[in-house]
Amino acid sequence: MHTSLVAALDIGGTKIAGALVDGSGTLLLRAQRPTPAREDGDTVMRAVEVVLAELSVSPLWAGVTAVGIGSAGPVDASAGTVSPVNVPGWRGFPLVARVSRAVGGLPVELVGDGVAVTAAEHWQGAARGYDNALCMVVSTGVGGGLVLNGSLHTGPTGNAGHIGHISVDLDGDPCPCGSRGCVERIASGPNIARRALEGGWVPGPDGDTSAAAVAAAARAGHPVALASFGRAAQALAAGIAATATLVEIDIAVIGGGVAGAGEVLFSPLRRALRDYAALSFVQRIEVAPALTGTDAGLVGAAAAALLAGHGGRAPLVSGRS
Amino acid sequence: MHTSLVAALDIGGTKIAGALVDGSGTLLLRAQRPTPAREDGDTVMRAVEVVLAELSVSPLWAGVTAVGIGSAGPVDASAGTVSPVNVPGWRGFPLVARVSRAVGGLPVELVGDGVAVTAAEHWQGAARGYDNALCMVVSTGVGGGLVLNGSLHTGPTGNAGHIGHISVDLDGDPCPCGSRGCVERIASGPNIARRALEGGWVPGPDGDTSAAAVAAAARAGHPVALASFGRAAQALAAGIAATATLVEIDIAVIGGGVAGAGEVLFSPLRRALRDYAALSFVQRIEVAPALTGTDAGLVGAAAAALLAGHGGRAPLVSGRS
Repeated sequence: MHTSLVAALDIGGTKIAGALVDGSGTLLLRAQRPTPAREDGDTVMRAVEVVLAELSVSPLWAGVTAVGIGSAGPVDASAGTVSPVNVPGWRGFPLVARVSRAVGGLPVELVGDGVAVTAAEHWQGAARGYDNALCMVVSTGVGGGLVLNGSLHTGPTGNAGHIGHISVDLDGDPCPCGSRGCVERIASGPNIARRALEGGWVPGPDGDTSAAAVAAAARAGHPVALASFGRAAQALAAGIAATATLVEIDIAVIGGGVAGAGEVLFSPLRRALRDYAALSFVQRIEVAPALTGTDAGLVGAAAAALLAGHGGRAPLVSGRS
Repeated sequence: MHTSLVAALDIGGTKIAGALVDGSGTLLLRAQRPTPAREDGDTVMRAVEVVLAELSVSPLWAGVTAVGIGSAGPVDASAGTVSPVNVPGWRGFPLVARVSRAVGGLPVELVGDGVAVTAAEHWQGAARGYDNALCMVVSTGVGGGLVLNGSLHTGPTGNAGHIGHISVDLDGDPCPCGSRGCVERIASGPNIARRALEGGWVPGPDGDTSAAAVAAAARAGHPVALASFGRAAQALAAGIAATATLVEIDIAVIGGGVAGAGEVLFSPLRRALRDYAALSFVQRIEVAPALTGTDAGLVGAAAAALLAGHGGRAPLVSGRS
């Protein structure tokens, strides 16, 4: 029997997922509700409370020592607040205090969703055994997190590793974040699809204009589709190379829906990395697809709570000599 | 009397400087030789040995507990080797082993020159008291280093913080490093001067085409000179914002000759930072000129040796609550 048991919450603009997770990262019980993202803050919070209530009726709940939360960002871990872009009712919302109250005062650990996925990949995925890693989620948006010197690097506010919003094109297109030429503005799924459509790619009879449909066209050799993935790969490579040059990382792990395109993305990405990762100390960086899948947010939120020392014992994270 | 005493070496393409430095960062004795940068590796090493010999004849030498080296990069602290771009005779040169032999086996700590300057600014300069800082040197090149969670972040090879060679313009001009659109390719002194000359700026009767001369013209209101500094400021802002977004920093400290331009650089830099540092958790980043001056490399090399635990006691670095 595992002595460590934590509750995990993965809060996004579409769903609020919860689970009880043991010290080996196994999900013992799940609960989920849609995010009432257009409603007021208290209504969104009630959905969180329903998920927690559903978990807490389990007899396992008595063993829970902490709650780990991975939330869509920006978050402010130092203040315990969240302001998810896609949940307008939450601006500086005191999520940590509200969750703590809902669970009778158990310790609560908050990190951004990119940091949570990174914790999961470092614990159980492709970054396992690496002391310096960047993990990215390339999907509707582009998020990420960092492992430095063997530990999760959250930053004081829990937002570190936000690679989607570094500018790799200082004269580029305006990004909704307020900057321009951000990695996300070029490499996210919707931007891959937009660029393909603008270039003259026409979707199939099913009318599917997703990045996955563009990936299928690229796999069939469609030049516009290939070019759109090539441009995304270039932006990701510039961002990964910048990260490696700034903090020294050994591996970049890439998950999320767009990473599902496989070699259509990874092959031009490895090529472009040779162009941008030029200095000797960044030339050997590895690129690998993420392994932890759709539960990464929950597993990572649990890892964050366990790493913060709230789990009775820390999860087993192997260092690399 | 200070119980900590270390020897410091600051090795660049122009000079090899050495000093004995006490635990409060005071330089007690100096020695210096020009770098025979075009000669073979052993000849360059002999210049280092002459500097060390000059220091070691002092009666103070008996108290030296370690040697700290800040070297032009790239360095490889894990292998103990250096490959300074401007010293072609040193490629993978085993500097740590050679210095260790020259000083009778004392411990030797090697970091890149940007990391050394950062150690100095964190110990005694504008980054003092900050737990998360980027320090930059904007000069003939653009270098830098990072303080994260209150400690110097060197990276496994000692090169972390290499902000001059992150790309902020993925379609930009080729950089000598092999990448394109690097911060250094836009913001270094020679590139500021080149852009001003290409734009039609004409130097004064003294024929001075340095970035300092461009700064003087900008101060007098010359639009081309102002535009060239504005572009450099934009690239620096994009790089600083990228760093803040990736690792969360509270302050960016900027030194080096180009920073001597003062408000001609800092005023457009602060403006451009508002454009690129858009996310909530990076909006409050401070920008400040460096304080440690030309001895920063020596002071920082000493700090690196003391921080590595070779000084009897660590230097006093105040955390910020």
